[in-house]
Amino acid sequence: MHIHGGDIYTYQGMLDFSANINPLGLPPAVVQAAAEGAAQAAAYPDTQCRDLRQALAEAEGPGWLQPANIICGNGAADLIFMLALASKPRRAMLLAPSFHEYEQALRSVGCQIDYHYLKEAEGFRLDIDRLLAQMQAEKPDVLFICNPNNPTGLALPRPALEPLAEHCRQTNILLVLDECFNEFLDEPQEYTLKPLLPDNPQLFILKAFTKLYAMPGLRLGFGLCTNAALLTKMEACAQPWRVSTPAQLAGLAALREEAYVLQAQALIRQERAFLSAELAKLGLVVYGSMANYIFFRAPQAPKLAEACRTQQPGVLIRDCSNYVGLEAGYFRVAVRTRPENEQLLKALRQALPGGPAK
Amino acid sequence: MHIHGGDIYTYQGMLDFSANINPLGLPPAVVQAAAEGAAQAAAYPDTQCRDLRQALAEAEGPGWLQPANIICGNGAADLIFMLALASKPRRAMLLAPSFHEYEQALRSVGCQIDYHYLKEAEGFRLDIDRLLAQMQAEKPDVLFICNPNNPTGLALPRPALEPLAEHCRQTNILLVLDECFNEFLDEPQEYTLKPLLPDNPQLFILKAFTKLYAMPGLRLGFGLCTNAALLTKMEACAQPWRVSTPAQLAGLAALREEAYVLQAQALIRQERAFLSAELAKLGLVVYGSMANYIFFRAPQAPKLAEACRTQQPGVLIRDCSNYVGLEAGYFRVAVRTRPENEQLLKALRQALPGGPAK
Repeated sequence: MHIHGGDIYTYQGMLDFSANINPLGLPPAVVQAAAEGAAQAAAYPDTQCRDLRQALAEAEGPGWLQPANIICGNGAADLIFMLALASKPRRAMLLAPSFHEYEQALRSVGCQIDYHYLKEAEGFRLDIDRLLAQMQAEKPDVLFICNPNNPTGLALPRPALEPLAEHCRQTNILLVLDECFNEFLDEPQEYTLKPLLPDNPQLFILKAFTKLYAMPGLRLGFGLCTNAALLTKMEACAQPWRVSTPAQLAGLAALREEAYVLQAQALIRQERAFLSAELAKLGLVVYGSMANYIFFRAPQAPKLAEACRTQQPGVLIRDCSNYVGLEAGYFRVAVRTRPENEQLLKALRQALPGGPAK
Repeated sequence: MHIHGGDIYTYQGMLDFSANINPLGLPPAVVQAAAEGAAQAAAYPDTQCRDLRQALAEAEGPGWLQPANIICGNGAADLIFMLALASKPRRAMLLAPSFHEYEQALRSVGCQIDYHYLKEAEGFRLDIDRLLAQMQAEKPDVLFICNPNNPTGLALPRPALEPLAEHCRQTNILLVLDECFNEFLDEPQEYTLKPLLPDNPQLFILKAFTKLYAMPGLRLGFGLCTNAALLTKMEACAQPWRVSTPAQLAGLAALREEAYVLQAQALIRQERAFLSAELAKLGLVVYGSMANYIFFRAPQAPKLAEACRTQQPGVLIRDCSNYVGLEAGYFRVAVRTRPENEQLLKALRQALPGGPAK
């Protein structure tokens, strides 16, 4: 089984840098709304997520995005499985390394996976021309892109991705663009492909409340797409009650948290710079993440994650050696608050060879 | 799209007899636990549902059932889709009428559906010999049985089902036995096939917290099965975070609600008898439900559901005409508290032809 970050149940009481969650934590109004949802849970949830989709349309595409262009799920991962089941692609292209659940969902419907390997020599940057050349040779039915990518944290701005989206449109390739970390970029609007949605029915943009509002335990993701036939097929491939009442009400409350989002963005911008610089000072190879997590290599310490767990206090970091396209020695850490980041740095200093005596 | 009961969002403010939920409502301790889950939701849920599966093992099979025999999902419907995706049957047999999501999930993986039609002339009772004969002819890979059946409310005791389970075991047919309404029977232990689990790896028992603890809005179901290979395949066909933190904590709290369950069982027993008798007095054909809902025919009023909605106050009942194997004129109502049942009866009296002037 694939091992993920965020397993605080196995490693209780540790400081968790292995999951990429907004370090400000759950907004109190969102907790309150979810609790109200719990109190209303003797009724089935609204199978159409009416209020939530209306609010999402206004938040994500005021003036042009319609509730009919939005589909909600039990976390973004739920939508990935729904996409796989609804489209049943024969052949898919995935970046490597990238988020594991794309592959898991595609394999569940018997899809062949082709990898487009990002290269360490290129700093794991996505080269669109090289990707297009591979796609023309291998002719996938679906392409998954995560922008910014997970675990690398690297993103391409919209103009760089437009030729790819256009190629997918012209050749009927479904482009699933995972923008779950978009809001942690410094200029989110320069990176999202949302403006392409009205004219590109082959584009499906995947988003989630999980990371931005620190609510992974509530399970709420959504997709944006103007291809009504695809959305109808997805609904046919999933239970109607998949989004719980607490999640629907929490999502509505989260969309009102504008100050919280701005505060998180400022914090991430500052702490990403701080943490990136400090990690480099420790002799780690940092790949220039633009998101709320930092990807690095520790050539001198392939067992760094284990060494961090055994510090006092223990710290969880994401060992990325189980990603396709990576090997031992690659890690990912979340960007958190300054006091927490200091604790991470202290643990890393102690855990790295030649660090302070333990 | 299939139309379900329980849509209080379209029909706001109406008394809902269309969903089969425990009329006692959510236990306060369950609401409290779910709210605590919401407060903890900045962490991912436990992907292994460790505490919940441990508690379920003790509640469902003390002394013999292991957490490893239990799989949890985002409601029972989630598990139905996981079963379909994991087993990818070519051919399935379903009772008609029965719960719609079996068919929806099976069709999502391209499975051929064969129906075993329950007959009005036999009071919609399941005749195991007739079913076995059809299975021997049509050789399904999977059989779904709901016991008690939905919408009919009719159940077969364990000795009657044992030959069916044995046939499935011997011929490698997956038997998915939906016992979501088992606890509403007068003698649940006489009906469950749980004792067969240790010796029958082809048996998968489906259960949910939804109906018994009145928590459909929280989404929590589970399966019991001793076939480790099947459970591993199911895990491979689903996201690891599919059960939310509020649902996991609510489930743990619900399992401590023993007095509540006894109270609900006593209430359902009494009110089912009352409501069945009163419905018959109205000239409706009642089929002897043993569960927390009553299935009936109103030959004189095929539009009875619509007529009930337009009463003051409006009452929602389940129009069963869209079930495979049924036609206009069949309905299902939940068994609720006496004052609510009186309201239902009043609405029915007014809505039926020849009833009191409106």
